[in-house]
Amino acid sequence: MLEAAESNCLTSNRIYLDYNASAPLLPEARAAMVAALDISANPSSVHADGRAARRLVEQARREVATLAGARPEHVVFTSGASEAASMLLTPGWKMGRSHLRMARLIVSATEHPCVLGGGRFASETVTTVGVDCNGVIDLAALEHALSDHDSADGLALVAIHAANNETGVIQPVDEIARLAKTYGAVLVVDAVQAFGRIPIDISYGWGNFLILSSHKIGGPKGAGAVVAVSDLMMPAALVTGGGQEKGHRAGTENVAAIAGFGAAAASTRLAETAEVRMMRDAVERFIVELAPDAIIFGSSVNRLCNTVLFAIPGMKAETAQIAFDLAGISLSAGSACSSGKVGPSHVLKAMGHGGLEGALRVSMGRDTSETELAAFRAALGSHLARRSASAAAA
Amino acid sequence: MLEAAESNCLTSNRIYLDYNASAPLLPEARAAMVAALDISANPSSVHADGRAARRLVEQARREVATLAGARPEHVVFTSGASEAASMLLTPGWKMGRSHLRMARLIVSATEHPCVLGGGRFASETVTTVGVDCNGVIDLAALEHALSDHDSADGLALVAIHAANNETGVIQPVDEIARLAKTYGAVLVVDAVQAFGRIPIDISYGWGNFLILSSHKIGGPKGAGAVVAVSDLMMPAALVTGGGQEKGHRAGTENVAAIAGFGAAAASTRLAETAEVRMMRDAVERFIVELAPDAIIFGSSVNRLCNTVLFAIPGMKAETAQIAFDLAGISLSAGSACSSGKVGPSHVLKAMGHGGLEGALRVSMGRDTSETELAAFRAALGSHLARRSASAAAA
Repeated sequence: MLEAAESNCLTSNRIYLDYNASAPLLPEARAAMVAALDISANPSSVHADGRAARRLVEQARREVATLAGARPEHVVFTSGASEAASMLLTPGWKMGRSHLRMARLIVSATEHPCVLGGGRFASETVTTVGVDCNGVIDLAALEHALSDHDSADGLALVAIHAANNETGVIQPVDEIARLAKTYGAVLVVDAVQAFGRIPIDISYGWGNFLILSSHKIGGPKGAGAVVAVSDLMMPAALVTGGGQEKGHRAGTENVAAIAGFGAAAASTRLAETAEVRMMRDAVERFIVELAPDAIIFGSSVNRLCNTVLFAIPGMKAETAQIAFDLAGISLSAGSACSSGKVGPSHVLKAMGHGGLEGALRVSMGRDTSETELAAFRAALGSHLARRSASAAAA
Repeated sequence: MLEAAESNCLTSNRIYLDYNASAPLLPEARAAMVAALDISANPSSVHADGRAARRLVEQARREVATLAGARPEHVVFTSGASEAASMLLTPGWKMGRSHLRMARLIVSATEHPCVLGGGRFASETVTTVGVDCNGVIDLAALEHALSDHDSADGLALVAIHAANNETGVIQPVDEIARLAKTYGAVLVVDAVQAFGRIPIDISYGWGNFLILSSHKIGGPKGAGAVVAVSDLMMPAALVTGGGQEKGHRAGTENVAAIAGFGAAAASTRLAETAEVRMMRDAVERFIVELAPDAIIFGSSVNRLCNTVLFAIPGMKAETAQIAFDLAGISLSAGSACSSGKVGPSHVLKAMGHGGLEGALRVSMGRDTSETELAAFRAALGSHLARRSASAAAA
């Protein structure tokens, strides 16, 4: 009964500030999905129903390619970004009919677990490069790792996120790409959080492969992509079977989710990020007004327009997250994947903030309103006041 | 323009007889999906929105488990059956913290490409067992392959489909399971086409693992499952990253597709298959009335209630398929994966029918109507008449 009661009061008046965990479905994506549900067929079927399904997939491919600066034929749809990462992070690659071996994987210490885990690389072949206190990759350490690698055994594969899911900190992808190119490494950019929030153009300075996710840009869950800058080389397929996606990814295409992903990409306007940035700045102002000793992570470097990760000395993030939840506000203590864990995330630890009692993440989108931000301010104020009161009583 | 014109005339008056390629979305599944689209959150998030998403996933897990005779905690959701097969068909397994090695994979010659390809097994470690002219596995050959295997190097893994996608022929799963058990092999049953069409109970005589697909039972594309009989052993994860699905499958759960899969499973009534069987029998009657020399594959053995694969001597399947398509009827020349190819499929070849000019598959479901079957009969009659006329004129 409690579960049912909770179900009923949901989604109506709640305030959702957890876009980096999963963004609400955009109306354009929803419409595309619902329309696709009426097409029964398998896109591999040659009859008219099959061709109708195929057209939706190919339209979405063009839409996703456009937002990534890629050619449609270089977009391989997957079930999501984790699958895309597992597909790309493998020693076994192909160039035409030839096999190509990647002998080392280089990642940064603040990557998402699907990259940090190394995919199909044995752990002893993975090098982790540190970040500074703002979460920006140590370029000298990256260059050292690249210059250390002996390519006689195989190439080096570098996998770096364009922007961090917890802090929003943006990496210097152009410099990373320049280093990878200089040392003959292949560069995979995890653009999951950056896609649709900063300009991305794989045809210029954005590495060789992108990892994309639909549900982080307002598309549905269940779609993602590997985007290649060219058709020169590809990883050995992870999911094998039928010849879908030119043999790079077997399985009947998730037509509705792919159509929704395409529609979300097509309706993304980078110009709208300016408004989101103003809301982010307002959130930060509220935090500092209420708690002048608050730490806003990565605030002195380039960050996504929509993300604030903050800590207030003495405030337990898990407790605060529960207080916000009870006040009807959904936000995260760290990433969704690690939000069940206690204490600071691997991202904060890598940035040298391991001693903190966790941090809170507010992440927004184009539909976040000033009213919602005011509610966030009020809830934070109440929580801090209760904390002060109980400290005074003790 | 042509594409647009074709789009507009679709889905309205067409007749869809290609359920084995992809079944139309059941209204129950559609409703569950559309409702799930309103829940923005990531099911891994601990706030109320996240818990709402989690509840949908766990409800679907119970629904799918029920139809498979499994315990909910032994259902691992994937993006589909191809991913499930790629996950299961691997030499690297785990029992708790221990590693377990599968040294040989045994499959039948009529498996779906995602099983026939062997997944992550090297090709020299895959044994293919033949079938008879009806498509039923050669049990003596299977026993021979099992008894030949030296388990000093690792266990044998047997992967067999319960029913074939092209012919609908049902394999003697209980006897296969008995043999696998006798010889200490692990049995994976690809139940994609059988699920919801014949009774399946993994707790009794259905092997150790099932591969399931949502869109073959009237759920949405983009969901599937690995179902285990127990939690004794599991394959090493294919998609790695976050700890979703108890670490067996990383990536944000496709909540809407999973909810739709669950709803489709919950609304599946095996009793309805009797009506579908009557329609199948009507289709076969029509075929034999119009072409007394027609071959109906597997007609003398156990077959699915909904599938007819037939050939008519001298009738090119690809040409006939196009004629049906122009008449507004969607059916397949073989499976969707191979329907772009010319000539008989690997299934017909394995059954000793390699000399035919292909075959046509009619596959139906609970919403197929007698009117649609009458249209099929009329279209087949017209096609055969045109063929006779042009033969007479030549």
